Amino acid sequence: MTEKGTPKHGDRRTTIGVIGCGYWGPNLTRNFYQLPTSRVKYCCDLEQERLKHMKALYPNLEITSRYQDLIEDSEVDAIAIATPVSTHYPLAKACLEGGKHVLVEKPLTGKVSEAEELVDMADKRGLVLFTGHTFVYNAAVQKMKDLIEAKEIGETYYVSSVRVNLGLFQEDINVIWDLAPHDISIMNFLFGCDPITVCTYAKSYIREGIEDVAFLVLQYPNNIIAHIHVSWLDPCKIRRTTLVGSKKMLVYDDTSTLEKIRVYDKGVSIQPHYDTFGEFQLAYRFGDIIVPKINDVEPLKYECGHFVDCIENGTVPRSDGRAGLSVVKVVERACESAKLGGAPLLLERDEGGKR
Amino acid sequence: MTEKGTPKHGDRRTTIGVIGCGYWGPNLTRNFYQLPTSRVKYCCDLEQERLKHMKALYPNLEITSRYQDLIEDSEVDAIAIATPVSTHYPLAKACLEGGKHVLVEKPLTGKVSEAEELVDMADKRGLVLFTGHTFVYNAAVQKMKDLIEAKEIGETYYVSSVRVNLGLFQEDINVIWDLAPHDISIMNFLFGCDPITVCTYAKSYIREGIEDVAFLVLQYPNNIIAHIHVSWLDPCKIRRTTLVGSKKMLVYDDTSTLEKIRVYDKGVSIQPHYDTFGEFQLAYRFGDIIVPKINDVEPLKYECGHFVDCIENGTVPRSDGRAGLSVVKVVERACESAKLGGAPLLLERDEGGKR
Amino acid sequence: MTEKGTPKHGDRRTTIGVIGCGYWGPNLTRNFYQLPTSRVKYCCDLEQERLKHMKALYPNLEITSRYQDLIEDSEVDAIAIATPVSTHYPLAKACLEGGKHVLVEKPLTGKVSEAEELVDMADKRGLVLFTGHTFVYNAAVQKMKDLIEAKEIGETYYVSSVRVNLGLFQEDINVIWDLAPHDISIMNFLFGCDPITVCTYAKSYIREGIEDVAFLVLQYPNNIIAHIHVSWLDPCKIRRTTLVGSKKMLVYDDTSTLEKIRVYDKGVSIQPHYDTFGEFQLAYRFGDIIVPKINDVEPLKYECGHFVDCIENGTVPRSDGRAGLSVVKVVERACESAKLGGAPLLLERDEGGKR
Amino acid sequence: MTEKGTPKHGDRRTTIGVIGCGYWGPNLTRNFYQLPTSRVKYCCDLEQERLKHMKALYPNLEITSRYQDLIEDSEVDAIAIATPVSTHYPLAKACLEGGKHVLVEKPLTGKVSEAEELVDMADKRGLVLFTGHTFVYNAAVQKMKDLIEAKEIGETYYVSSVRVNLGLFQEDINVIWDLAPHDISIMNFLFGCDPITVCTYAKSYIREGIEDVAFLVLQYPNNIIAHIHVSWLDPCKIRRTTLVGSKKMLVYDDTSTLEKIRVYDKGVSIQPHYDTFGEFQLAYRFGDIIVPKINDVEPLKYECGHFVDCIENGTVPRSDGRAGLSVVKVVERACESAKLGGAPLLLERDEGGKR
Repeated sequence: MTEKGTPKHGDRRTTIGVIGCGYWGPNLTRNFYQLPTSRVKYCCDLEQERLKHMKALYPNLEITSRYQDLIEDSEVDAIAIATPVSTHYPLAKACLEGGKHVLVEKPLTGKVSEAEELVDMADKRGLVLFTGHTFVYNAAVQKMKDLIEAKEIGETYYVSSVRVNLGLFQEDINVIWDLAPHDISIMNFLFGCDPITVCTYAKSYIREGIEDVAFLVLQYPNNIIAHIHVSWLDPCKIRRTTLVGSKKMLVYDDTSTLEKIRVYDKGVSIQPHYDTFGEFQLAYRFGDIIVPKINDVEPLKYECGHFVDCIENGTVPRSDGRAGLSVVKVVERACESAKLGGAPLLLERDEGGKR
Repeated sequence: MTEKGTPKHGDRRTTIGVIGCGYWGPNLTRNFYQLPTSRVKYCCDLEQERLKHMKALYPNLEITSRYQDLIEDSEVDAIAIATPVSTHYPLAKACLEGGKHVLVEKPLTGKVSEAEELVDMADKRGLVLFTGHTFVYNAAVQKMKDLIEAKEIGETYYVSSVRVNLGLFQEDINVIWDLAPHDISIMNFLFGCDPITVCTYAKSYIREGIEDVAFLVLQYPNNIIAHIHVSWLDPCKIRRTTLVGSKKMLVYDDTSTLEKIRVYDKGVSIQPHYDTFGEFQLAYRFGDIIVPKINDVEPLKYECGHFVDCIENGTVPRSDGRAGLSVVKVVERACESAKLGGAPLLLERDEGGKR
Repeated sequence: MTEKGTPKHGDRRTTIGVIGCGYWGPNLTRNFYQLPTSRVKYCCDLEQERLKHMKALYPNLEITSRYQDLIEDSEVDAIAIATPVSTHYPLAKACLEGGKHVLVEKPLTGKVSEAEELVDMADKRGLVLFTGHTFVYNAAVQKMKDLIEAKEIGETYYVSSVRVNLGLFQEDINVIWDLAPHDISIMNFLFGCDPITVCTYAKSYIREGIEDVAFLVLQYPNNIIAHIHVSWLDPCKIRRTTLVGSKKMLVYDDTSTLEKIRVYDKGVSIQPHYDTFGEFQLAYRFGDIIVPKINDVEPLKYECGHFVDCIENGTVPRSDGRAGLSVVKVVERACESAKLGGAPLLLERDEGGKR
Repeated sequence: MTEKGTPKHGDRRTTIGVIGCGYWGPNLTRNFYQLPTSRVKYCCDLEQERLKHMKALYPNLEITSRYQDLIEDSEVDAIAIATPVSTHYPLAKACLEGGKHVLVEKPLTGKVSEAEELVDMADKRGLVLFTGHTFVYNAAVQKMKDLIEAKEIGETYYVSSVRVNLGLFQEDINVIWDLAPHDISIMNFLFGCDPITVCTYAKSYIREGIEDVAFLVLQYPNNIIAHIHVSWLDPCKIRRTTLVGSKKMLVYDDTSTLEKIRVYDKGVSIQPHYDTFGEFQLAYRFGDIIVPKINDVEPLKYECGHFVDCIENGTVPRSDGRAGLSVVKVVERACESAKLGGAPLLLERDEGGKR
């Protein structure tokens, strides 16, 4: 294990252990395995069958059902955690206590207090705490941010996001904890800040007490709002975000392979001068649509490389523990709002604000 | 003018006057003109140019800028009102006082109290008060209702509707008053009742105080919710309603000419028995998609014929004054909720409930 | 009647008579009726019901079943013919003999010799002979031509066009005569010349001897080929043309309302220098897609205005008799090729070539 | 090595060697590796880097640049060949001579005479000769065949197939040899026979003498025609086949993940009786569209399992050497037709006909 940013002796690769070999763990394993700057030494899971599967794919791997093996091995620099949400906190805590850098899948934890504790621990020990917000490493999301920052969009008005499909029901968390962190991490990244208020309307149809459909409205500074529709109960798989600005509008469709981003040269603006007795004048612009070519690197590959870079060179992660904490705060408040039938709730300003 | 349901002498057609020749009035005129059971005697508008245009299209028409001319003419049986919302109430009131049957474009009025007064007046005088909720005469909406009532969908879980595009900003009303009545009238029609609560989040970006983007959640009896997204600020024209049931799901896309309704044989259900120690079991069904052929009659043609039928034969309108009042109540409450930042508000139960 | 290009006395509008009130005639009538530079005096058809329908729409119109009435009326300047193909030649001939300017729906005639005779007649008498090739007045087709001429596309390689749907079977002509003239007129317009050879494979499935499915290949100068697939037997309505050039490629989808043209910044080129021992090198470019805003004027409105302009000001029609003749030549040869099982046939060069 | 259909001693898996580790070879390796009935012992390629890559993925594999190693190893039962087309014949011949069962990627060979020789050799030695026509193992293609055979489609009229995209230019073969075998193998499979004639129009734009765009028309028995458009020069990736029958029509879109097959309840038929003086009557049917759920097993997995089954149990391959030979005959003739400018050519009837 190495202090963050401390150069390695020789050209030893950063050594990774992966806990959790269910849905996402194998993707982390594959990416860390293929990176030239890292190697995977361990895969850990409670199910022997998953471990055997990983061993068959990567015969040089060590497999174990004891996560302590990874922490106790001084060769291991960093641990990636892709387990059910309720286990994120105890596992990440143990890893940090063991002096390991940690990548935790989103959401960082299931409670704000737990996320705060992990952020503090990592800070004090000089270790990297990294949240697996894959979408902030997505080239299409980066393109959106570029367009906003280059003022191409004009003033941002609002964002509306739909992330729905049938199934993939989670056992321990509702659809807000499961899907909304993707959108919240995208919004926080695009706007460079946290929301001020959240209000959520949610319902559970299939399993009592586990919401499977939810509508969130996040109020950001500068009068920007973000609407998020998440559902496990929809006939179509939709991953679509519309961003409306004063000069242009854009649609990001993550299910499209070749046309992820469409930029519409459309806008409405109030005419600066008009006859006081005359009609109110609006100027509409309808122009070309541009579908920019988007680099199609796997976002997770970029994310894993960035994690290794943060460990080796002390770079601050784009999705650090604070970013993970911000998302957990929003989700926790969103669930409270849902329990109150959709009441708008304030996120504490001292915790929110500019990052 | 005739009492509702009183047969005409001879084979005289029902005589119609149309007030308002802007966007929708010409469509009403054309349909009443072409129906074998009605004729249009008058078009009324304050703009001479619009009147000249109508006269050019229908040379036998009388044109006038005085709506009183229509009321004072005893040949006129019924008047169709397609004017700005704020004028609906005074015009409809004058028509009813003059003993005319009335068709009012949606929304029926701009205030609940006004709508209530019109409903009372029509009741007392035995006149037809008809609200122009065109979508309840749409064959695709009827198909949805048929599928629900035939239990093809199973238990209805929720509906999500998106009605957005760029522009067509109204001067006197916000986007909720402008677009949401379509969806609310569809939902009320599909479920056969009014919602219990409404909560709305809305923003105005272009003109201060006139909301141009809004998200509504309506809670109906039987745990059904309806989410409605309306906007004048979107790069794409979307008219899409998703209905999720326990057995099937369906999508209604009004912008599609040939595939308005798609029925997905998909569903999720809780397995009735499972091992108490075992995993919770959900059964997913993924089956065929059916795109039923939909009869493509113009909904307004059907609506106009139904209006004449209600006048001549005493049929109760599918979209009567009460239906119009119900929609006005929801919109009024939705706007109040929006002013409160999205707070959920109860619609009075004595006014709501089964119709 | 006036000599081509001779100014009218006073501000009298060009007076039009329309023969044929079936599918297309009413569209011609409506456009000539609404143009500020023309008026429609007559509609002529053999069916009384169609005439009554036209009279109801345009009460000032004179209706007749005798086309001679139009020719004999000296007020009539020009006659538009929208009748079955076999009647184009005798009607157009009679009109020209009567000194009238003529617009004939596509295809100009059913035989090359007939078209040649009409072109000669019009030339000798100084009358406008105009072919109703609507697509050369379509803004999307004009955009394609602009992109070609501005060298945006690079060298044009080939065009592939699909024009298929179910039904609208014609009684007197096959699918090649019915649909291919659209594509041939587009291609001739885009490339500014006639094809050199044509080969066609066609089949008749529904009515013996009337081909309902056909595939044409036209060879143009400069190694450009155009492939055309026309069919009355397809489940989908497709109107799609792909144009491939050395620098860019574009797709024109006439069924799309908002995205008629898509320009792909894609191309392949041979690297100018490469190691003689090395591999052959191809350079692919994959870039942005642009969907240019297309002016959505009705093409027929533009066409009718152009016809009047040609009559009044002596302008040469974009789709004159020669253009109509060129298309008839290609179709006639295409049908011969189809009878020979798809054999490639030469169009006479002295007749073809640069226009 | 074992005689076709001879049971193995013990439960030893069928042992496979793969020659060619470029584009397709790794897919064959992965599938044979994961099947419970087979194992991969060798990968062979001339490029060391590809071999190292395969070894990294499958550490138990032996790698070699000598294909003779595979033939000389008596443990190897079968060899899969995924190399450039010109090498198919010599490699397959050597494998058969060495007593190995052989799977050859499509097209089977680059010449009819070579394919005939391989078929003969395999017959005489009792070895399986298998052509890698993956699409006949595709569940959507099987669904089409089921619908045809269940008479759901009615009488088959014609098929039109488009297989185009930008790039993936081959060095040694033209686009007909590269892409058309997919469509020809599908058509032969659907109709259960070979075509009678073929005519082809093709052009080369990028590399002289290597056609990159081609249009083929195949005439099958029973008046069925198949049109195939293949191109390496198209802005869009299209994999679309339309099948038109007298009762129904269907579209197979291989680029769609969830809606590969759409069945249109549309058809046209001639009315059996009609008034001799009346108009010719056609009956159109426009009905529902059905999108049947298609089993989404990887076709290559099914293909590889079928190959092993043929070896172990003597099953006749769905895509045997004869099927491969049929496709090579069509392609060879298609290229001859293209050289003749699109002349229709007869495939020898004694070789064609019912298989």
